[in-house]
Order: sequence, then C-alpha cells, then structure tokens
Amino acid sequence: MDLIQRLNWRYATKKMDAAKAVPQEKVERILEAIRLAPSSSGLQPYDILVVTNPQVRAKIRPVAWDQSVITDCSHFLVFAAWDDYTTERIKTMFDFITAERGSTNEGLESYRKMLLSKYPPRGPEVNFQHAARQAYIALGVALVAAAEEEVDSTPIEGFEPDAVDDILHLRSRGLRSVLLLPLGYRDADNDWLVNLKKVRRPRKKFVTEVN
Amino acid sequence: MDLIQRLNWRYATKKMDAAKAVPQEKVERILEAIRLAPSSSGLQPYDILVVTNPQVRAKIRPVAWDQSVITDCSHFLVFAAWDDYTTERIKTMFDFITAERGSTNEGLESYRKMLLSKYPPRGPEVNFQHAARQAYIALGVALVAAAEEEVDSTPIEGFEPDAVDDILHLRSRGLRSVLLLPLGYRDADNDWLVNLKKVRRPRKKFVTEVN
Repeated sequence: MDLIQRLNWRYATKKMDAAKAVPQEKVERILEAIRLAPSSSGLQPYDILVVTNPQVRAKIRPVAWDQSVITDCSHFLVFAAWDDYTTERIKTMFDFITAERGSTNEGLESYRKMLLSKYPPRGPEVNFQHAARQAYIALGVALVAAAEEEVDSTPIEGFEPDAVDDILHLRSRGLRSVLLLPLGYRDADNDWLVNLKKVRRPRKKFVTEVN
Repeated sequence: MDLIQRLNWRYATKKMDAAKAVPQEKVERILEAIRLAPSSSGLQPYDILVVTNPQVRAKIRPVAWDQSVITDCSHFLVFAAWDDYTTERIKTMFDFITAERGSTNEGLESYRKMLLSKYPPRGPEVNFQHAARQAYIALGVALVAAAEEEVDSTPIEGFEPDAVDDILHLRSRGLRSVLLLPLGYRDADNDWLVNLKKVRRPRKKFVTEVN
C-alpha cells in the first residue's frame, strides 16, 4: 500500500478487538516514528506515555466519553506536552543537541539565545499552547505510522485533561495531557463507522491556487 | 524506503535549489494526503493555498524571517485555519457528509446537535485555536507525504500571520494563516543544516511505560 491507500484504509476506529494484541515490534516502530517527528526549534516539547495497565485505562475511560477503545485497545498512547518552555528545558535540549553533534555552531548559539530571551517570559499558558500544537504534528505522523503497520488507531481529543493529568501524575512532571491514541485492531463486525464512506471536501473546495 | 528511513531522510530544509521544480503529480499526491488527514469531528477546519506566483512569495518572505526557501521553493503551501466554527460551517460539513454517505444516521445527527450547541458559543478565538491545531495534524501527514515523494520541505511557524493574511486576502474568506510549507529540492552544497545530525531525545527519556 502506498501512503494514499494507507490514509484511505485508516479511520477513527470506534470498536477494537480486546483479544488482539499489537506485536511489540510494531509498537516500537510507531514510537520511533513519533520520536522522529519534527517540532518547533527541535525542542520536542512533549512526552509519550504507553499505558498497558488495565486499571489505569479503566480510570481514564470515564473521563474520556466512556469510549470502549480506551480499555479494549492493545496499547494506549498519551501525548503529554510541556506545561511551559522554561529556561532549564531550553538549555537542556540545546546542550543535548550540541553534545550529539560534537560541536557548537554560531547560528545555533544565537538561535538558543533568541529562544531563551523570547520563550520563558511569554508565560506558561502561551508556551503550553505552543507545545501542545507540536504534539499534533507527532499525532499526524503517528497515524501514518500505525496505518503503515496495519494497526488501527483512534485519535482522541475529547477528554478531561485535568483528570487524565491526575490519573497519570503528569503535572508533577511538568506535563499536561493533550491527545490520546489507542492502538489495536478493529472489531469490524461491531464498529458502526468501519463501513461508512470517508468524507473529505473535494480538492477544488479545499485547495486554492495562487498562480 | 520505509517510514522510519523517510523520517530520517527529511529535515527542515534551509536552502532549496530554485532551478528545480517538483513535478505536478508529486504535488497532487502530497495535497491528496493532506486532504485525507483526519481532523476533529471530520470538520476539516482549514484550507490549503498553493502559491506559485513569485510576486506573492516575494511579499511573504520579509514577513517570515526572510527565509530564502520561501522564494526558492517550487511550490509554497499555506495552511489557513477557519477563524471560527460557525453554525453555518458545521451544518454545511454535516450536510455534505450525509449527502456523500447517502443517508443520515441517528448517532451522527445527535453528534451534530451537540457540536452546534457547544462550538459556536465558545467564541472565535477558542474555535480558531482548535481549528489551528487540526492543521498541525495535516502538517504531520504532509511532511511524511513529501518525504515519500522524495520532495524536501520546510515547516515554518515563524512568520507574521496578520501580514500573510493580508497578502493572501484570507480574513475576508474567514481564514487565518497558521503554517507555511515550502516544497522543493534541497541545495545540499549550500544548506548549513543538511549534514548536521538529526537529534531527538532517546526513547527512554521520551517514552514512559505505565504497565
């Protein structure tokens, strides 16, 4: 399957087969794709949690519209963004980049200074919103990666983030939950959405050419 | 190349070869992947502009940190999100989904009512922020799609959105610019970033397992 076929194959799975586990090597490739996703200034301002614990998932389900995929899926991913761009976080990431590349670089150094002067003073709410957007890029990559592995997934924005933050103890780590992504296998016989046509606006209404 | 290889191949290209055009069929496949990207409630709350006009790109460049890729790229994409979730927009999209599927469905109808009661009263700023996040999912898909076509790309968040909105007359269409994505071919001899190692946090610092 090419990418277009994979994107047509995938859908927001509403019912998963609780008896089917995704092989760990597939999960690892999906996580690696997420890890490689780009982010603003390369800061990667989010963590991924992989929840397999059934008790924890049972606690999350009622604060996420009681969706059955949360407990029926094989692996349950949580995208948790930084609650702020702090001076320490920016310095840590730039030090790591410099160490990995084996040398610093004048352009990178002035860029780091610019971020340090600009980001921390904006305050945590502006910074969290910016970090959260980066997690959405990673979600886009994750959805493709799952489809490439023929693994179903259900992107979920509809949940009570404060409750999920509590259940997963995210705030004490400086994180806030942004997106949920159950991974598993569709239970096609019991999923109302599986056979409904995927609908998108036609190209001519979606794309404007400025020639 | 598999997805992981493609994600390692791609990078935020800093210098493109202005003499090389991306074949239109590749651009079309990238646009089709973007069109197929999922969004919250399937509303697709953004448009894509494909700017090839050199005068328009020359106007955008100074309000986007003077990045040379804006004028040197082959095709210049702008992701422009809805400025609001209006009643009319929600109804139009749900009517379209129903028409495409040939029948309505009780679940979809109650979902539509819920969105109509919840989204428009939140106000344009909350709704725009939510719509903008959806464009980031599409950006993630676009970056993979470009890499699959061996087309280079440069995701750009750093620009003056009001100025770009003016240049492209977006506000009168109810749109606000969110992301820029030049597509083209790397000028490897003149790109300072092309040979620098891609740095990401190691898996063990990026992923937490809750078993």
